[in-house]
Amino acid sequence: MPTQTQIGLMSHEELRSEHERQSEKYSQLKAEKLVLDLTRGKPAPEQLDLSEALLALPGEGDHRDGNGTDVRNYGGLTGLPELRAIFGELLGIPVSNLLAGNNASLEIMHDHVVFSLLHGNVDSPLPWVREEKVKFLCPAPGYDRHFAITESLGIEMIPIQIRPDGPDVDLVARLVAEDPQIKGMWIVPTYSNPTGAVYSEEVVRALVSMPAAAPDFRLFWDNAYAVHPLTEEFAPAHDVLGMAAAAGHPNRPYVFASTSKITFAGAGVSFLGASDANLAWYQTHLGKKSIGPDKVNQLRHLRFFGDADGVRAHMAKHREILAPKFAAVLRILEDRLGASKVASWTEPKGGYFISLDVVPGTAKRVIALAKDAGIALTAAGSAFPYATDPDDTNIRLAPSFPSLADLETAMDGVATCVLLAATEKALDDA
Amino acid sequence: MPTQTQIGLMSHEELRSEHERQSEKYSQLKAEKLVLDLTRGKPAPEQLDLSEALLALPGEGDHRDGNGTDVRNYGGLTGLPELRAIFGELLGIPVSNLLAGNNASLEIMHDHVVFSLLHGNVDSPLPWVREEKVKFLCPAPGYDRHFAITESLGIEMIPIQIRPDGPDVDLVARLVAEDPQIKGMWIVPTYSNPTGAVYSEEVVRALVSMPAAAPDFRLFWDNAYAVHPLTEEFAPAHDVLGMAAAAGHPNRPYVFASTSKITFAGAGVSFLGASDANLAWYQTHLGKKSIGPDKVNQLRHLRFFGDADGVRAHMAKHREILAPKFAAVLRILEDRLGASKVASWTEPKGGYFISLDVVPGTAKRVIALAKDAGIALTAAGSAFPYATDPDDTNIRLAPSFPSLADLETAMDGVATCVLLAATEKALDDA
Repeated sequence: MPTQTQIGLMSHEELRSEHERQSEKYSQLKAEKLVLDLTRGKPAPEQLDLSEALLALPGEGDHRDGNGTDVRNYGGLTGLPELRAIFGELLGIPVSNLLAGNNASLEIMHDHVVFSLLHGNVDSPLPWVREEKVKFLCPAPGYDRHFAITESLGIEMIPIQIRPDGPDVDLVARLVAEDPQIKGMWIVPTYSNPTGAVYSEEVVRALVSMPAAAPDFRLFWDNAYAVHPLTEEFAPAHDVLGMAAAAGHPNRPYVFASTSKITFAGAGVSFLGASDANLAWYQTHLGKKSIGPDKVNQLRHLRFFGDADGVRAHMAKHREILAPKFAAVLRILEDRLGASKVASWTEPKGGYFISLDVVPGTAKRVIALAKDAGIALTAAGSAFPYATDPDDTNIRLAPSFPSLADLETAMDGVATCVLLAATEKALDDA
Repeated sequence: MPTQTQIGLMSHEELRSEHERQSEKYSQLKAEKLVLDLTRGKPAPEQLDLSEALLALPGEGDHRDGNGTDVRNYGGLTGLPELRAIFGELLGIPVSNLLAGNNASLEIMHDHVVFSLLHGNVDSPLPWVREEKVKFLCPAPGYDRHFAITESLGIEMIPIQIRPDGPDVDLVARLVAEDPQIKGMWIVPTYSNPTGAVYSEEVVRALVSMPAAAPDFRLFWDNAYAVHPLTEEFAPAHDVLGMAAAAGHPNRPYVFASTSKITFAGAGVSFLGASDANLAWYQTHLGKKSIGPDKVNQLRHLRFFGDADGVRAHMAKHREILAPKFAAVLRILEDRLGASKVASWTEPKGGYFISLDVVPGTAKRVIALAKDAGIALTAAGSAFPYATDPDDTNIRLAPSFPSLADLETAMDGVATCVLLAATEKALDDA
């Protein structure tokens, strides 16, 4: 958030002329009749092309895993051991504590909330639906689909401001120690959506160690971007399960991951890492709805990757496509908004988003201006619980899907909208 | 159920000698040290081989459906229109009322119960968890996994005896009209699991037309074996959605189906057919947990089948494998048990099971004897709500998975166990 903007230092006359200049630029932008979309963190077609070989795998005659299991038939709730071994290595989770599922870790997260509501988790005194109220801590800005799950299921969400190394753990610890209605916390520990925050080892340790008033308090640990750096350096895979066990809270973390942004976004494999007790609990309830995950798709992924290094090599190819797009967004933001200081933004080391903070009170206006100019941005406030950005300042930018050329055009347009909204606001306030 | 058995007419001496004869046969059976499994309705490897081409489909470069949608990416909760058109034709459901999902219709059924519990359905005055009690009617013997869903979620199950053309609709209509706590009914309308019952048009009409005390009463219409005849004649696809709409209850049926017993049991495509209002309701809640179904797998199936006739031709190949197995079971039952009249059984025209009724009070004993002889049968009572067969008489036979030779060996052994248990019982009763 800018503390002192150049626009703030302008005289009324300078301001009017700046507003006119930006209005003119905006008129030109609209005249281009763009149709561009920065709304969602979708892989670009060229990224999907990297996994095109999957479309002919495993190949006729190849339908058994290393244990001899016929992957075409029913059964096997835990998924293919060999694929779990690969992702266990990448996520720092023992194979026996990692389960492989269908195409959406979101579904496994949803399952965990739903099963807790209807049955309670392994440490619950009651099913959550029988509690007077259930609350989740929600580091924000965060992932809108997390918040949609808890909101739709009537769980009260408490926003906690996120920092580059995670939330303020002292605040979190105080709330969790005091309030037994706080049963969960949404977390994206690596290259967090949308700020790119990477939880430090100290933060992780604090979260697994802090006393909780609710015996059934859980960390919903969505490691969606575990192997998704934008540089050559991978983020450390903290052994959150081991750290939680060592701290006497073995059942606290549920770890989620998937290949949605590794292979095919809609046809990947999801993973769940958890303690023995948690996995047994999950499978008891999962067994009522599932005839086993799609093991053919798991074998397909196993054949495609080979081993953990295969995944790392594959992620390097994603990086070659993604890094220039992130660099372009940052360059345009700096070029167009750096001097005027009407905005600040994150410079993520990985993940799928850049979080842009514009002049407080103008995020909705910027998004509306962009929409009228044919540039779709994520809805205002969507990175906050109840879609409410208290300062109306945050915009989530998703650079992955458009081509580099389209992205540059779109971002230049966004910058114009940011400046126009800022001058409008300054004139209004004057 | 036998009314008068030959065994029942025997003198005590004849009975003792018959018992000795069967005990001797059973000793021989045990000496064979068999390891055979008739427990579950799993397709045999040769059936899965029929779909082996799927393992290399859709093939590199083929990743768009007829609308140009990139099936590799996120999105599209309703699934591929072209695949829905094929199964819409087979199921008698308009494409716009049919949704294609992931690999388990069981999961869609579970979703419907869970979403009803947590949110209520479109006609519910309250979420079902806030009702004092919720009950389901359960035609029995029926499908154990249906009953497992309702039992695990605390829904009271009321067994209704099934007949060859469905349940006694007068009884069903009376219960549903009188009791507003009855919110649902499990139904397998075609080649019902395990009796092979085929719901007649009259029964279907009665079920969709009857007045219900609960405004949110639903038929969970699991058409799992819609295209699975054991003869050349397909069962009629009753237009249950149309009939329900015509009767003024458009939202009453939820229709479920899948390719689990068409292509790969663990890696097929599931379907949901329902009214516009029901589909909108389902998608609202589905959208919280799903990033869209695996559309690559749907495209794979589309390429494999081509059209509805492709499915029909494919099912004929299944029939060629399955029909001889069912015939063998029926022949052995008739040869070994026909004269003594200690058992009765169904002669299904399709589906995956034969329902065997042995002397009341001996089903558990037969299953235990078979187990000790290395022949695994489905657990006693499993086809009944709460796994409780009131007469301890029913055994579900699943002939599909074993080879024909193994099946014949197993069935001959089962017949020995049936006769031994019957003579034991007769001696006990004497």
